[in-house]
Amino acid sequence: MSVVTDVDQTIRQVRREVAALHAELPKYGLVVWTAGNVSARVPGHDLLVIKPSGVSYDDLTPDNMVVCDLDGKVVEGEHAPSSDTEAQAYVYRHLPHVGGVVHTHSPYAVAWAARGEAIPCVTTMCADEFGGEIPVGPFAIIGDDSIGRGIVETLRESRSPAVLMQNHGVFTVGPNARSAVKAAVMCEDVARSVHLSRQLGQPIPIAQPSVDALYDRYQNVYGQR
Amino acid sequence: MSVVTDVDQTIRQVRREVAALHAELPKYGLVVWTAGNVSARVPGHDLLVIKPSGVSYDDLTPDNMVVCDLDGKVVEGEHAPSSDTEAQAYVYRHLPHVGGVVHTHSPYAVAWAARGEAIPCVTTMCADEFGGEIPVGPFAIIGDDSIGRGIVETLRESRSPAVLMQNHGVFTVGPNARSAVKAAVMCEDVARSVHLSRQLGQPIPIAQPSVDALYDRYQNVYGQR
Amino acid sequence: MSVVTDVDQTIRQVRREVAALHAELPKYGLVVWTAGNVSARVPGHDLLVIKPSGVSYDDLTPDNMVVCDLDGKVVEGEHAPSSDTEAQAYVYRHLPHVGGVVHTHSPYAVAWAARGEAIPCVTTMCADEFGGEIPVGPFAIIGDDSIGRGIVETLRESRSPAVLMQNHGVFTVGPNARSAVKAAVMCEDVARSVHLSRQLGQPIPIAQPSVDALYDRYQNVYGQR
Amino acid sequence: MSVVTDVDQTIRQVRREVAALHAELPKYGLVVWTAGNVSARVPGHDLLVIKPSGVSYDDLTPDNMVVCDLDGKVVEGEHAPSSDTEAQAYVYRHLPHVGGVVHTHSPYAVAWAARGEAIPCVTTMCADEFGGEIPVGPFAIIGDDSIGRGIVETLRESRSPAVLMQNHGVFTVGPNARSAVKAAVMCEDVARSVHLSRQLGQPIPIAQPSVDALYDRYQNVYGQR
Repeated sequence: MSVVTDVDQTIRQVRREVAALHAELPKYGLVVWTAGNVSARVPGHDLLVIKPSGVSYDDLTPDNMVVCDLDGKVVEGEHAPSSDTEAQAYVYRHLPHVGGVVHTHSPYAVAWAARGEAIPCVTTMCADEFGGEIPVGPFAIIGDDSIGRGIVETLRESRSPAVLMQNHGVFTVGPNARSAVKAAVMCEDVARSVHLSRQLGQPIPIAQPSVDALYDRYQNVYGQR
Repeated sequence: MSVVTDVDQTIRQVRREVAALHAELPKYGLVVWTAGNVSARVPGHDLLVIKPSGVSYDDLTPDNMVVCDLDGKVVEGEHAPSSDTEAQAYVYRHLPHVGGVVHTHSPYAVAWAARGEAIPCVTTMCADEFGGEIPVGPFAIIGDDSIGRGIVETLRESRSPAVLMQNHGVFTVGPNARSAVKAAVMCEDVARSVHLSRQLGQPIPIAQPSVDALYDRYQNVYGQR
Repeated sequence: MSVVTDVDQTIRQVRREVAALHAELPKYGLVVWTAGNVSARVPGHDLLVIKPSGVSYDDLTPDNMVVCDLDGKVVEGEHAPSSDTEAQAYVYRHLPHVGGVVHTHSPYAVAWAARGEAIPCVTTMCADEFGGEIPVGPFAIIGDDSIGRGIVETLRESRSPAVLMQNHGVFTVGPNARSAVKAAVMCEDVARSVHLSRQLGQPIPIAQPSVDALYDRYQNVYGQR
Repeated sequence: MSVVTDVDQTIRQVRREVAALHAELPKYGLVVWTAGNVSARVPGHDLLVIKPSGVSYDDLTPDNMVVCDLDGKVVEGEHAPSSDTEAQAYVYRHLPHVGGVVHTHSPYAVAWAARGEAIPCVTTMCADEFGGEIPVGPFAIIGDDSIGRGIVETLRESRSPAVLMQNHGVFTVGPNARSAVKAAVMCEDVARSVHLSRQLGQPIPIAQPSVDALYDRYQNVYGQR
C-alpha cells in the first residue's frame, strides 16, 4: 500500500470526524446559522480539514469538508473553506501539540469577550478543564495573521485550552478535534455559570493549590484509561 | 409557454420557499405560538407571498401561504394574510432592492426595543452582518402606513438589514427571504450577547474603521461564490 | 341517540383535546417534570377534564385524563386528579365564560410572582393579548377555596386572561383550553421580554389609548374568521 | 432460585433504571458533555450502580453501568466508575434511607453555589419539594471523604433532598434514583426562578407555617397513591 493511499485513507477518516463533530455545536447552543466551525489536523501530514464557509450545519457531509495546507491554501475540496481557516492554520503551524481547533460565538463567552474580561476560576469545573481563568486575547480583525497570533500568544501563557478573543468569540484547542469541541462546550458552560453567579454578588475564589489539585486530577484520572 | 404560466410557476416556487423558511423561526427561538412571519417578493411581479394570520408553524404548507399585491390586497389564497401584511407591502413598494421581509418578537431584541435603545456595535458579528449599530424605529401601531413608513425611514439611514420597532419587535429585510431570515437570527444573537455583556459592565466599542473593514469583508468574501 | 351517549362522546373529545394540549407546556418551556396542567370544561355539562396528578407529560393519554364535577369530585377516571383541581373547579363555577384553564410555574412569570409584582404593559404583544398589565393575585395555599377565589377576584378586575399568583405561578383562562394554553405561552414570553428589558433600564410605557387600540384590533381582527 | 441469582436479577433491573434515568439530565439542561451522573443503591445489598466516567449520555446502556460496593470499589463492570463514586458511596453508607443520588453542575444552581449562598424559600414549588431553603455545603475537593461528608452533614440538618456544594454543583438524594432525579430537576428550576426574581428586587418570603403546610401536603397527598 503506497504512502499516497495512506494519506487518502487518513483524510477520509478526518473528514468524517470533522463533519460529525459539527453537530455538537448547535446541540449545545454554541452557534447560530453558520457562525462557528471545527477543524482537525491530518495526523502525520501538514494538512487540516475544516468546514466550508457559509454552509448550514444540516448540510455538512464528509465530502464537502475542505482540506487545506497549513498556510490555509485549499488542497482538496469543491468549496471555499471557512473564513477562519487562516487563523486556524496559524495555530497548527505554531502549536504542534494541537490536533483540533474550534471557533464559536457562544453567547455567554462573547459577553465576557466584548468586555475584554477573563473568566475567573470560581467553579470546580473551570479548575478541572481550564486549570485557572479563561484568558482574553487581543482585538484582531480577519485578513492577516493577527487573529492566529493572538490565539497562540494567549494560549502559550495559560493552561487553558480556550481563549476569548476580544469583541469576537471563542477559540479552543485540543490534542484532537473532539477535545477541542469539549473545551468549547465547557467554556460556554463556565462562562454562563460565572456570569449568573456574578449577577447577584461576588463568587468565592478557589485557592490556587485547590485549582492545581483539581486540574491535575481531572487531566490524569477522569474518564476511561 | 405563456406569461401567466410563468407567474404561476414562480408563485409556486416562492410559496414553497416561504413556507419552508418559517421553520427557522421556532428553531432559533425567535417566535412563540404564531407571533412572527416571513414574506417574499415574487420576482418580476408586484406580488408578495406571506404567512396566513394566526396559523401554527406546524400547519404551514406551500398551499396555505397567501399571495397579495403590493397594497396588501389578497390575490390568491384561502386564508386571511398575516396582520403584518400592510407593513411588509409598504416595505416592498418603497425599497425595490428588498426581496424578503421577516418579523419577529424575539425576546432579547424586544428587550432593547421596549427601551427604545439601539444595539451598539461591540461584537465582530454585529459589524459583519449589520455594519454598525442595530437601529430603533418609531413607536407605531398597526392599522395604517405608520409601521411600514417607520421601517423604511429607519433602514434608509443605516446599513443594517434589521430595525427594532419601539415597544414592538424586529423587522429584517434582505435581497431574498432567506437573507432576511438570517438577519433575524443574527439580530437576536447580537441582541442577546450585547445584553449579557452589558449586565456586568461596559462592552468595549469597535472603532469605525474596523467596523467598516469587517462589514466590507463579510459582505464580499464570506460564504460560497 | 340518548343524551347519555352525547355526554360520553363529548367527554371523549375533550379528553383527547386536553391530553394533546399538554404537549405545548414542555414544548414552550412552561413546565418541568409534572408541575403544570391543562383543564377544559365539558361543554354543556357541569364537568371538567384535567390532568392526573404527578403523571409525566410523556405518559398522558386521553384515557388517563380525569373527569370531575365542578366541585372537583372525580366522576370518571382511574387516577387522582391534579392537586390544582379544586382551584380550577372554583374558576369554572364562578366564571361561566371560561372553557379552559392552564396552570404553570413558568420561570420568568414566577420571578414576577415571587416579588408580587404585576408585569407592566410595555410591549405591543402584551397589549394585544392581555389588554394591559398582567395582574398579581394574592398569596394563597392549597387546600381550600383561597386559590380559586384569588384567581377569580383578580381576573374580574382585568382584561387579562392571565394572573400571577404571588409566590406561586400562573393561571390562565380562555373560552376554550387552546386559548388558555396560548395565554400561558404569551404570558411567559411577555414576562421574559419585560424582565430582560428592565435589567438594563426602564422600558417605555405604552399610552392607554394605544393599548386599547391594539387590544381591540387583536381580539377582533387577528387570525382566521 | 438461589440468592446469587436474585442479586443478579436485581442488579440487571437497577442497571436498566440508572441507564435510562440519565436521559433526564440533558433533557432538562442539567448537564453538558459528561458532567453529571445518577446512581442507585441495589436494594437489599451493599452495592450501588453508577455511570461510567467520561462516557457520553448517548452511549449509556445498562451494560456499561458500573457496580461498586459501598466503599466505591468496582465489583462488576468493564469501565472505570464516575469520579464521584466515592462521594456517593459515602452517602449510601451514612444515610440508609437514601436509595438514589444525582450529581449535576446545573447552571443556576452553580451560580448560587459559587457564591456559597443558600436559595431562599420564596416559591411554593420550593416549599413543596424542599421544605425550606436549599442549603449550601462546604467547599471540598475530590480525592477523599470530604465531599461525601459535606453532603451528609448538610442534608442531616435540613428537610431538603438537595445540597449545593460550594463552588462545585448539586447533589440530590431520594428514596430511589427517580426521586433524586426529580429533586435535581426541581432544584435547577427553583434556582432559576429565584435568581430571576432577585435580579429585579426582593422576592417576598413565605412564612414558616405556610412552608410547613405546603411541604406536608406535597409529601403526603400529591401524585398517585
